[in-house]
Order: sequence, then C-alpha cells, then structure tokens
Amino acid sequence: MRNSQVEISQIQHSPLQPLSYRSVQINDAFWSPRVQIVLNQTIPYQYEQCEETGRLEAFKLNWKPGMDKQPHFFWDSDVAKWLEAASYSLGLQADPELDQLVDNVIDLIVSAQQPDGYLNTYFTVVEPEKRWLDLRDGHELYCAGHLIEAAVAHYEATGKRKLLDAMIRYVDHIDSLFGDEPGKKRGYCGHEEIELALVKLYRLTGEERFLRLSTFFINERGQTPNYYDLEAAERGTPNLFDEHNGRVGIHDVKIHTQSHLPVREQTEAVGHAVRAMYLYAGMADLAAENGDASLTEACQRLWHNVTAKRMYVTGGVGTSSHNEGFTRDYDLPNESAYCETCAAIGLMLWGHRMLALDCNARYSDTIERALYNGIISGMSLDGKAFFYDNPLASNGDKHRKEWFGCSCCPPNIARLLTSLGSYIYSSDNRTAAVHLYVQSEGSFTLQSGEVSLRQETNYPWDSAVKLTVGTASDISFALKLRIPGWCPQARIFVNGTEWPAEEWQLVNGYAVIDRVWSDSDVIHLDLAMPIRRAYSHPNVHANAGRVALTRGPLVYCIEQTDHEADVAVIGLPGDAKLQSRHDASLLGGVTVLEGSAVAMEQGDWQDDLYRSEPPAWRNEPFTAIPYYAWDNREDGSMRVWILEA
Amino acid sequence: MRNSQVEISQIQHSPLQPLSYRSVQINDAFWSPRVQIVLNQTIPYQYEQCEETGRLEAFKLNWKPGMDKQPHFFWDSDVAKWLEAASYSLGLQADPELDQLVDNVIDLIVSAQQPDGYLNTYFTVVEPEKRWLDLRDGHELYCAGHLIEAAVAHYEATGKRKLLDAMIRYVDHIDSLFGDEPGKKRGYCGHEEIELALVKLYRLTGEERFLRLSTFFINERGQTPNYYDLEAAERGTPNLFDEHNGRVGIHDVKIHTQSHLPVREQTEAVGHAVRAMYLYAGMADLAAENGDASLTEACQRLWHNVTAKRMYVTGGVGTSSHNEGFTRDYDLPNESAYCETCAAIGLMLWGHRMLALDCNARYSDTIERALYNGIISGMSLDGKAFFYDNPLASNGDKHRKEWFGCSCCPPNIARLLTSLGSYIYSSDNRTAAVHLYVQSEGSFTLQSGEVSLRQETNYPWDSAVKLTVGTASDISFALKLRIPGWCPQARIFVNGTEWPAEEWQLVNGYAVIDRVWSDSDVIHLDLAMPIRRAYSHPNVHANAGRVALTRGPLVYCIEQTDHEADVAVIGLPGDAKLQSRHDASLLGGVTVLEGSAVAMEQGDWQDDLYRSEPPAWRNEPFTAIPYYAWDNREDGSMRVWILEA
Repeated sequence: MRNSQVEISQIQHSPLQPLSYRSVQINDAFWSPRVQIVLNQTIPYQYEQCEETGRLEAFKLNWKPGMDKQPHFFWDSDVAKWLEAASYSLGLQADPELDQLVDNVIDLIVSAQQPDGYLNTYFTVVEPEKRWLDLRDGHELYCAGHLIEAAVAHYEATGKRKLLDAMIRYVDHIDSLFGDEPGKKRGYCGHEEIELALVKLYRLTGEERFLRLSTFFINERGQTPNYYDLEAAERGTPNLFDEHNGRVGIHDVKIHTQSHLPVREQTEAVGHAVRAMYLYAGMADLAAENGDASLTEACQRLWHNVTAKRMYVTGGVGTSSHNEGFTRDYDLPNESAYCETCAAIGLMLWGHRMLALDCNARYSDTIERALYNGIISGMSLDGKAFFYDNPLASNGDKHRKEWFGCSCCPPNIARLLTSLGSYIYSSDNRTAAVHLYVQSEGSFTLQSGEVSLRQETNYPWDSAVKLTVGTASDISFALKLRIPGWCPQARIFVNGTEWPAEEWQLVNGYAVIDRVWSDSDVIHLDLAMPIRRAYSHPNVHANAGRVALTRGPLVYCIEQTDHEADVAVIGLPGDAKLQSRHDASLLGGVTVLEGSAVAMEQGDWQDDLYRSEPPAWRNEPFTAIPYYAWDNREDGSMRVWILEA
Repeated sequence: MRNSQVEISQIQHSPLQPLSYRSVQINDAFWSPRVQIVLNQTIPYQYEQCEETGRLEAFKLNWKPGMDKQPHFFWDSDVAKWLEAASYSLGLQADPELDQLVDNVIDLIVSAQQPDGYLNTYFTVVEPEKRWLDLRDGHELYCAGHLIEAAVAHYEATGKRKLLDAMIRYVDHIDSLFGDEPGKKRGYCGHEEIELALVKLYRLTGEERFLRLSTFFINERGQTPNYYDLEAAERGTPNLFDEHNGRVGIHDVKIHTQSHLPVREQTEAVGHAVRAMYLYAGMADLAAENGDASLTEACQRLWHNVTAKRMYVTGGVGTSSHNEGFTRDYDLPNESAYCETCAAIGLMLWGHRMLALDCNARYSDTIERALYNGIISGMSLDGKAFFYDNPLASNGDKHRKEWFGCSCCPPNIARLLTSLGSYIYSSDNRTAAVHLYVQSEGSFTLQSGEVSLRQETNYPWDSAVKLTVGTASDISFALKLRIPGWCPQARIFVNGTEWPAEEWQLVNGYAVIDRVWSDSDVIHLDLAMPIRRAYSHPNVHANAGRVALTRGPLVYCIEQTDHEADVAVIGLPGDAKLQSRHDASLLGGVTVLEGSAVAMEQGDWQDDLYRSEPPAWRNEPFTAIPYYAWDNREDGSMRVWILEA
C-alpha cells in the first residue's frame, strides 16, 4: 500500500472557480436565520438520531446476528453527511464542544477501518461474504464517497488529518481493486457519489490517482457487457434490494442506475433522480479536470434535457415516487410530483459544477430556482420538520415530518446551508463573479491582488443590491453580475452614476464591468422584480390552462388558509391586477401577492354532478405566498399552478 | 335435507316489473350486431378459454397437489357466468349444438357436487380444510351465487331442471349452515353476489327460505362484532388474499367488503366497486320483496351518493385501481380512472332494481348512461378485445386486450348483452313503460289483456322513435315513455297528431299517456338531441376548466388520430360551433361531432419549459367520436374532458 500521508497543495483549475465558503461571510436576513437553525438545531438533533438509531455504535463492529439495530448498508453515509455538515459548521464558527464531538466520531469511524483499509460497517459485520460483490445495490462506494467528502470538509475546516488519512488509505484500497488493469474489477457503484468525492480529494491533494480512479468509474459506467449482469452471474445470489425489498422487476435497474449506456452516449436524464444528479455532477467535475470535451458535451445535453423537459418550475426533479426518479419528457404532474429535496440539492450541485465549466446564467438561474423553491421547501420554517418529496399541489393531506432516523434529505439540507457561501461568488485571475444575491462579503485573490466585495441587499424581497469594493490599492478586474432570467430590466449604477446599458457587455446572462476599481467603489444593481405569470410548455399536460406566479426568484402558491373558496377552483383572470406586499409578521417575513381573483360557485349545483351550464364564477380575494413557505400554518390544500379563468 | 324438487310458480311483485328478455325481440341496428358478436364469438371463445385453462376440468375433482392448473377460488364463477350467458343465448335462439354443450357442462358441474350438497372445486380439492372458514376472501358464496344465477337462467331458457335442482340442494346445504339460529354461522360473503342470486331463485320458485337466507346475509352484514374478525380469530391462519397476494394492510378490508357498518347505516359507496354494486342490487331486491322501507331508504341514500358524487360522466364507477373501487366524494381523475367494466354493469344491475322500486328516470337515465358509454367501451368493435378498466383520458399507451383466462369482464358483458331485452320495458297491471329506446318488440300481459309495443328507431343516432301498439281489441292502459334527462325538448304525436305537452303528465321523468289504445295506434316520440356541453361540479378538481361533449345518451371523446395537434392541448372555445354528421363507414357507423377548435402552438416555445407569455393558440379542425368507440383505430391519445379555451 502506498504511503497515504499525501501532501496538500492548491492546484489551478478551469476558468472560474467558486470561492470557498470559508472566504465568504454571510450576514443575510433571509439566509442567516436558516443557517443558524441548522447549526443550533439540525446538527445536534441529527447527532442524537445517529446515536439513538445505532448508526454510531455500528462503527464499533460489535453487531452480531440476532441483535437489535442491525446496520443497514446506507448507514455509514448518514453519519458521513452529518460529519460533513458539522465540519462546515466548524469552518464557519469555532465551537470547541462540537469540535470534540466530531473528533470522537472520527475516532470511532477510523477504529472500524480494517487492516487492508476497508471501511464499511454493514459489509464488515452483517454480510462480510458479500463485500464488493453487489455494487449495484450494496452502496459500498457510495458510503465511501460520502466519507471522503466528510474527510475533505473536516480537513479544510480544522486542518486535522485523521479522517483524511484514513480515507486516503481506503481509497488506495479501492484503487487496488477497481480499474481496467488485468485482475481488477471493472465495476462502479449503483448509486453514484464517489466520482465527485474523488475529484474533491484530488483537488485537495493533487494526487492524480484519485482523479484517474474517478475517471475510470465514469468511463466504465454503462459499457457492454453491463457490469451488474456480470457480477450477478458471478455471485449467483439475488441483489440486496431484490432480496430485502422484493423489488425484482419494479425498475429497469440499468436505467435506474444510469448504467444503460456509456455516459457520453446518454442524452436523457433517467432513473433515480439523486443518483442521476450526482453522476452528472461528477461528470462535470471530470470534464473540467480532464479538459474532456466529449464529457462536457454529454453534460450539456443532459442539462438541456433536464431543464427544458424534465424540471418542475420549483427546480424539483424526479417526477415519480415509484422510482424516486425521472419518467419521460414533460411528465410533470403536480399533486403526485416526487421532487425529492435531495434531488433538487443534486441539481444545484451539478449546476454549480457546470458554472465552473461555463459561466453562463443558464446554470446560476437554475441554481437559484432550486435553492429558493424546491430545496428550502424541504424544511419547515422552524427547522424541525422535513419534506422528502415536494409536490406542487396538495389536497391537504401532505405534511412535513420530524425526521426519524438519519435519512437522506435533512442532513443534505444541513450540509448545503452550512456551505452556502461557496455558491455565491467565483473568480479567475482577473474576474470576480456574483451568482447569487445574498448579503455577504466575499474575499477574492486575483492575479493583481486581494479584493473584497461586500453585498448589501434585502433579496429576495427587494430588487436593490449594493456592492462595495474593498481593495488596498486601485486594481483592474472584471466584475460579472448575474442578470437573472426572470428580470425584465436591470440597471447598474457605479458610484451613483448609471452605467448605461449600451456600455455593459451582457455575456451569457452576466453583466460585465471591466475597469479599474478603487477601494469603496459602490455598485448599485437594480433588478426589476415585477410579479410575473409563468406558463408551461404545452407538452406539460398537467398545466394546460393553468398559470403560476413568480416574483424575483420565488415561485408562489396559494394555500387554503388564505382563502374562503377551495383553492382548487380559484381562477386567476388573465387581466387580474396583483400587488406585492411585505408582511414581516407572516411566515417569518414574506412578500405576499394579493389581488382579486374568481372562484367557481358551488352553491348553485344542488345535487348535479354534471350539467350543461358552465360553472358560475364569483369574486374571491386572492393571496399567494412563496412556495417554500407552504404547510407552515394550519392544514389545507395548496396549488402552485392555478386555473386561469 | 328438504326435498329440492321445488314447484315453480310465478309470483306477483312490486309495481313495475321488467319484461323478461324472452318477451322482447330486439332488431336494432346498434344493438343487434353487438349481441350477435357475443353469440357467435364471445360465448364460443370463452368456452374454449374455460376448457384450456382447466376451469372445466376442475369440476372432475382430479387435481392433486403438485399438478398443473391448480383451481383458483374464483374459477367456478367464471364457468357460471359463461353458463348464464349461454343460457340467455339459448333463450334467444335455438342452437342444438350449444344446448348439448351446455348440458355437458352442467353434467360436469353437478358431478362435482358432494353428498351434503356442497359444490366448489377449490375448497373440495385444494384446501378442503378451509371450507367455510374464510368467508372474507374465499369467494365460496360468491361462486355459489353465480351458479344459482346460471341455474335460474338455464331453467328459464330451456325448462331443464338439472342444474337448478343441484343448486337448490346446494342452497339448502348453505341454509343449514348459515343463519341467526343457534349453532349456525352468522357469516356472509366478502364478495357480494349470492344475495341477489337467492332473490332470483326465490322469484322463480316462490320458496320463502331462499328469500329468508338472502335477507339474513344482508341483515347480518357489518354487525358488531365483525364476522371477519371472528372467523380469523377462530381460524388462526392468514386470510387467503393475505397469504396469496401479500395484501395485508393494503385495504381496510371491512371497507373493501362493505362490512364496516350494518347496511342500513351505510351512506357512502365504499370499497371494491363491483362488490358494492352487487350488494346494493341485492339490497334493492330485498327492499322490494320484503317491503322494507329502511332498506329502500339505504338504497336511495347510496344511489344519491354514487350518482351525485362518485360517478364518472360515462357511468363508470370505482376511481382507483389500488382497491378496484371507491375513494372519496368527487375524486374522479381521468387518466387513472379505474371504472371497471364490471362495475358499470353492476351499476346497471342496481339501477334496474331501483327502477322496479320506483319508476323514476333518475335510475333509467343512469342505466342508459352506463350502457352506452362505460359498459360498451369495455369491448372492441370486433368483439375480440376488452378493457377491464375504462379511463377517460389516455396518453396512447392504453389498449384493450384479448382476454386470457376467463376473467370477469368479458363474460359479464356477454351475459348483459344476451339479456339486454329485460332492460327495455316494464309493466304492472295497467301500465307499459319504455325505459330504453331500442328497436324491438315487447309483449306485455296487462290485467285487461295482451298488448305488444313495436319500437322503430335509429337511436342513439336519431331522435325519432316510432311506437306501434298491437292489441286484439281496444284496451285501456297507461303508456309511460322515459323523457331522458339529456333531452331539452320532447314532442309526442299520437296517430299523427301532436299530444300537447300540457296534456302529458310528466311523472318522475316519464311522459304518461293514459287512454284507450287500439291496434296499430302509432306514437311518435321526437327527442331533441342537440350537441350539449357537460361541466363537472366544481369539486371535481380533475375537470376544472374542462368541458365534455354529449349528444343524446352518448358521451364523446377526441382521439389523436383525428387531430394534428396533441389532443391534450386542444381547446374548445366557449362559442365554438359544432355540427353532428353521421358517418356510416366510420367505426361501425357513428355520428361524429365536428367543428373548429383551437390548439396551443408548440413551435414558438424553442427550449423554454416555462415562460411568461401565455401559449399562443391556432385554429384546429375538431372531431369528436363516441367514447365507447375509442381505441379501435391506430394508437393515440384520447380525452373526454377537453380544455375550454
């Protein structure tokens, strides 16, 4: 085994790289309270859950057949995601108590590592004879991937190497088993994750072998003969899922795991949505690192397929609960929408990597769409309850649940929000780009020196953004400001003087102001934020004759509690006048949309179920709230797509 | 055991009783070809299927564990429904070959009868130890019920008593086991059917004990403690369905079997739809026979619930494939509509019995709605393929199937169409009522003499109905003619002279002409048959903003093959002018509805999935065909409920 004491070096990547969350201080009225909830509540609670359910105990490897709390082959990943979020928390603010807790968990994890470097509780104590024999369902490489992400996050936050070194030993063990060299397994994980994790490890360490291993997994995926057929034939026993859940025949497992075709031949997002998003994110990482144009093109084709044909207006992806995944183009029903919170997070992770390949607002607009709608809808305003699936219509029987067990979505929200800073800015040698409007300060290291950008804004409620440059001396760089796709008119003022639109360059959705900047230069960005109607492509049959409302990045919905008429029969006339009004006391402070709509009369129907006279309409006061805030008051129906009367 | 050689007597029932199908000669351009298909094709094919699958062989009782073709506890009922349809066929036309075949099948069935009268293949050879121990799932009384119906039909058609006597022996055996006397089981079947069958047997034989047994089953149903709990506790083994299908917990089985409440306390149609319809039909029979007002009221409440809140516009009932049954009020989604063909037939069976309690067009209108739409949609125009479920929208992947095995719907259509004559007319001492407009001749025995009514009509395409009275001498009676609920204006001419509307009595939807009739008197009935729009109650969320088209009794749909634009995005303007045109060459001859509609433009969307401009509309020629005829041409989408543009 090679020496795992790897040197850490920063290496140079493709054009625009995100600032680390540690280079960004967020102090935002919208986001900071959400991050605080995660720090103060979600992370401690999730630790307790991991402890109570036996997920931590599992690393002691004491479990024996017949005992309670049998480890599940997902469990290690839940602890890993908690550890990743806790590490970001330590990166944001010192917390000696949490630091100690994390160290203890790391000690426990590392104690479970086998002499050969192997580290997986399930396949050490429950079914050791199946180690590496069921890559399709066993989630071994998936769990390894999350542990790698946790190790990288912990090292970056604390400088401590214990978990990192253990994971490097584990990766070296994996590397000794998998690859296209003779005698190695040509396999890859049924649930993608390790691919992007290995790129993180490579970026931290500069060790090419991690990049090569990730590249191998991506290149091998979907080759013929299919590895999952080979391993099943060799193993001769049922796959774990088939055995445990009787899932045989429910899915086409090759579609489900995106292993139906080599990745460069894939043109449609298929199968399990979280797996797909993590795969595409890994592909985008490798496209950047390897300068691989064919992989970039595959990513672009898949991005187009998702965002032009398979994405809800909330940024949710994955239509069906049946496969937790994709179905077919334009199949976007509302009440049964699955839209797993983790899949919207996955879309954001992927978009973030596409943005590093190509600074194009098509990616950052989608990141924003998912973040402000389909992701944060996953958590209640008090941070105590979660949606796994995020439908766009409800008849009142859908509610967030307190999470039992360390399941996937709550810790995924936790690790996203604690690292939110890394999604706001990016830079190259002489560019500072602003992708998201969040009150914060970002510190950039450009070729010509250090620059800071301080954002002040009340986004997403207000359209005004003030940016203040901080620099020790005058410095020339290009400032790129995203002009959101939802914004019909943007104005930019530099030091109080309007920067005429004809002098901007609008490049791929970004206003570029390339000039010599001085300390305390102020840029005002005024993004017109009207209430807008959204219509779906006619192929989205579920939304025919329906309209959604948006304002800025937010998608709105109507909830029963604000209406007398059943929200299902409220119609919005094409010419209805709507106003926005900020209500600081409502739902933690939201801007509501108000006006007058109509609703179908019910009183004149008597006992008719069908009749030849059309329904009569009466006036109905209308209030819409941001979608993310739904189901935080009394029970009731909800609709995003409203009848257009 | 009592002597089963029961005397056959005709007994007098409640006010208006249907003519037997044997008193009605149908010679109708719409219906006769369908009946011929059943006679020439469905009945022979179904016999082959029963033979090939082992259903007939099963009555030889030779099956042993380990052998192929293990009898299923449904099987006897499939043979019974075939036998019932074949008997009606013999009642319609002599057919010595079929007569012999039926005799052979009856010999086979009767040979399986046990010394104590018991007659069930599954519980004789497969699980004899469970005989009568699993009424909830075992279908023993259900199979018995279908055999009783077959026996009655066979006796009435041929005068042969072999099956009838065997079934009377079986019923006497059942009667010795079930009842509220000490020592008897207080059970009832999980799938209702025997209740209405026993009333048929009572009506044929006049034997009160059959009526009492039926009354016991109905009265006992849903009492506390619930019998299914008692039998499960006593048996101590899983129910058959739980054991065979892993169905534990899928359904509330008491709701599923309508045994959650005593029948007189039931106010909502719940559970498995076919079971519910057969139960309510049996309740209506007993309400009539026993003059039981509380049962009549329960039937009326349930009828109201179904037809005012839980019935599709096609007469389909049972929303969900999950339970093959009812869900909640107004839950009537289109694409996922289950609407089992058998359940629509069950609604017709129930309505037929309600009509005998109360000659009210609310029942006959619904019979007509189900018959012309949700029932005959179940069979392809060539009679070779069948729908079990009849959705009201399809994206092109739903097609009728040739029936494999003798499953429930095809033979149910067969027995319905071969006995269709019994749904057209009814009478009491001095009334002849016409419920359905079908070219036919009905023979009535009134108190004052014999009368015939000859109907000539091209219904459902034309609105003109000519009725000719046949009588040996002048005779006074009341002629009741249903004025359909869909008809905005009806005119009646007697011997060429308009019978002024103010001189009719319109009683419960029937025009009553009470006078002295002479031979060859001619009544012309002119039912205005405009194209009408149908709208759903606002609580039917699936149809908000949508319209359906009807003409006469027919509900229409649009099919992809008639349109260039996707039918899902065709909109019908509120003021669109539509014309009807009969096309004798299309779909066996149908009247189509034509005109000009609009369709959403797709070309101007490029890659937008969402946008702020509403979809543009372009003109689209519009053609609608009768719903029953859909999926008889090339594959494609279909919609009953069309966007109203």
